Amino acid sequence: MAVLAYKLPQPWLDAIMAAGSHLDIRTEVDGKAARDIKSIVFAWTPPTEFEAYPNLRLLQAVGAGVDRVVMKGSIPPHLLIARVVDDSQAECMSEYVLLHVLRHHHRLDHLQREFAHRRWEFGVRTPARECTVGILGLGRLGTDVARKLAIMGFRVRGWSRTPKVIAGVECFAGRAMLDAFLSACRHLVCLLPLTPQTTGILDKRLFAALPKGSYLINVGRGEHLIEADLIPALEAGILSGVTLDVMREEPVPASHPFWNDPRILITPHTASVMYPRDAAPQIIDNLDRVEKGLVPENLIDLTIGY
Amino acid sequence: MAVLAYKLPQPWLDAIMAAGSHLDIRTEVDGKAARDIKSIVFAWTPPTEFEAYPNLRLLQAVGAGVDRVVMKGSIPPHLLIARVVDDSQAECMSEYVLLHVLRHHHRLDHLQREFAHRRWEFGVRTPARECTVGILGLGRLGTDVARKLAIMGFRVRGWSRTPKVIAGVECFAGRAMLDAFLSACRHLVCLLPLTPQTTGILDKRLFAALPKGSYLINVGRGEHLIEADLIPALEAGILSGVTLDVMREEPVPASHPFWNDPRILITPHTASVMYPRDAAPQIIDNLDRVEKGLVPENLIDLTIGY
Repeated sequence: MAVLAYKLPQPWLDAIMAAGSHLDIRTEVDGKAARDIKSIVFAWTPPTEFEAYPNLRLLQAVGAGVDRVVMKGSIPPHLLIARVVDDSQAECMSEYVLLHVLRHHHRLDHLQREFAHRRWEFGVRTPARECTVGILGLGRLGTDVARKLAIMGFRVRGWSRTPKVIAGVECFAGRAMLDAFLSACRHLVCLLPLTPQTTGILDKRLFAALPKGSYLINVGRGEHLIEADLIPALEAGILSGVTLDVMREEPVPASHPFWNDPRILITPHTASVMYPRDAAPQIIDNLDRVEKGLVPENLIDLTIGY
Repeated sequence: MAVLAYKLPQPWLDAIMAAGSHLDIRTEVDGKAARDIKSIVFAWTPPTEFEAYPNLRLLQAVGAGVDRVVMKGSIPPHLLIARVVDDSQAECMSEYVLLHVLRHHHRLDHLQREFAHRRWEFGVRTPARECTVGILGLGRLGTDVARKLAIMGFRVRGWSRTPKVIAGVECFAGRAMLDAFLSACRHLVCLLPLTPQTTGILDKRLFAALPKGSYLINVGRGEHLIEADLIPALEAGILSGVTLDVMREEPVPASHPFWNDPRILITPHTASVMYPRDAAPQIIDNLDRVEKGLVPENLIDLTIGY
C-alpha cells in the first residue's frame, strides 16, 4: 500500500521522504492509483474528497492543532486522524510564553518607552512568587508551560475541560470553576484547543472575571478571541497589555485596529515552531503502524475535537 | 552593645527595626555613644572613619554586592564584612536574565520594528537546544540563572575564577580557559563580582573571542564593561544586541551615546530586587551572632574581594 504526501511544504516533504525511504510515498495519485493509498500526510488541510480513496485509513497531520480538519465535520467516521506530539514544540511554546509573561511582568514596554525618552526610573516589581499566572488548557504544551513558570517562581494555576493533577500547579476543571480560576490570574495564557466549546471563550465576560489590570497572551487560535471585546477591555483598564500570536485572519490586514494600539503586540504565528526533522520519525512510525495493521499514536477523538 | 543603622533607605530601616525590636538599633550616634557600636548596617557605602567606633566588629551590607566597600581598600583588617545572600534576589535575577536572553533569542526588537510597520514576517528561530548561553560568574545568582536556562532547553556553560561543578552546566575556570569558554557563547551574561581582576573584562579582546553576532547582557557592574569598546563591536557585527542593567554612571546622563543606539537596551539597575522584609531576618541573625560572640554568616573574603 502507499502513502500520499498531500500538498506538503518542501521542508516537510524532504524530511518525510528521508525518514520514510522504505515506504511508497507519492506526492500525487490519479485514477485507479488512489486505491493504493492507505495514509495521507497533510499540513494544514487534507483533501475533502475521500470517495477516491476507498482504502484510506489514516489522516496524519504534520502539526499539533487539527481544528481546521475537525471543525469542518466532514470526516468519514471510519478514518483515523493523528497529529504530532512533539517535545521540541513544547519547548518552543514555553520559550514564547515565558518571554511574554516576563515581558509583561517587568513592564518592559513601559521601560522601553522611558528609555526612548532617556529617563531613568526605578520601578517596583512584584515578586514572581506573589504573582499568579493562569493557563487555559493543560495539554502537553500547557503542562510544559505551567511547569516552567512554576520553576521561575510564579504561582501557577491551570484550567482544563477535565480534571488534571500537575505537581506545583493549582488545577481547575470545567465551566463551573472557570470564574474561580480567573479571579486570581494576573497573567492569563490561552493554550486551549479550538472546539465549538472554546470558540470565542476570550470575551468580555471572561475579561470581567480577571483581576483589574491583567495581561493576556493568546497562543491558542485566533478564533478563541472575540476581537471586538479586546480594545474596550484595555480602555476600561480590565486588561493592561495583550500579546497575540494567533489571529482570525493571518497575515493580519494592514487596516486591522490592533496594529494601532501600543498595548497590543502581535507576533506572526511563531510561538511554536515544529521542526520537520524532529517530527518526521513520529509520522513515519504512524505510517508503519497502519501498514502493519496496528493502531497509530496521538489520535484525535472526534467526539471532543482534539 | 548597640547597632548603628547607617544612612539606610527608609524601607530598609523599617524592616530592620521591625525584625530587630529586641536590639538597641540607633540611626545616629555622636561622641562617647560611638563606643557602644558593635555592628553597622549600611546600604551602599559604610562610614569611612572607623576610629570613632573602637568596639566595632561587623559591617553588614543590606545588598549582595559589596565592591563599593571592598574596592576602597581602607577597611581595618579586624573588621568583618557580611553581605546578604537571598534566594528571592536570585529569583529576580533569573527572571531578568531569562527575559532578556529570550528577547534576544526571539529577535523581539526586530519583530517589534516589523510590527510597527504592520509587516507579517515569519522568522526562523534556532531551537534553544542548539543555542549556547554562557554565564560569567557562577556564584549564587549565576548558578540559579544557569540552572533555569538549562531547564528552558538552552545549552549552558559557565566560567568562574575557581572550578565548579553544576549539573547540566559545562563549567570552565580561570583565565586560561576564558577563550575556550567564549568560543561557543551565542549569548553572554556577566554576573561576575567586581574585583581588580574583573574590572574592564568586557572589552574588545573578549568580544573578539565570541562567535560573530552574539548577544551581551551585563548584570554585574558597570565597571565590568569598557564602554568605548561596545559600539565598535556592534558596528563590526561582532555583537548583535546588548542589554545593560548596570552602568559606570547611574543614572546614565542624557548625553550618553548608548541611548542613541537601537541595538542597546539600558534598564535602570532593576535586574535584581532585594525585598527588605525578605533580607531583614538574615541581617538580624548576623547582628545577634555578633552580640553573642559568634561568627556572622556570608562574610566577604577581603583577599579575593567577594
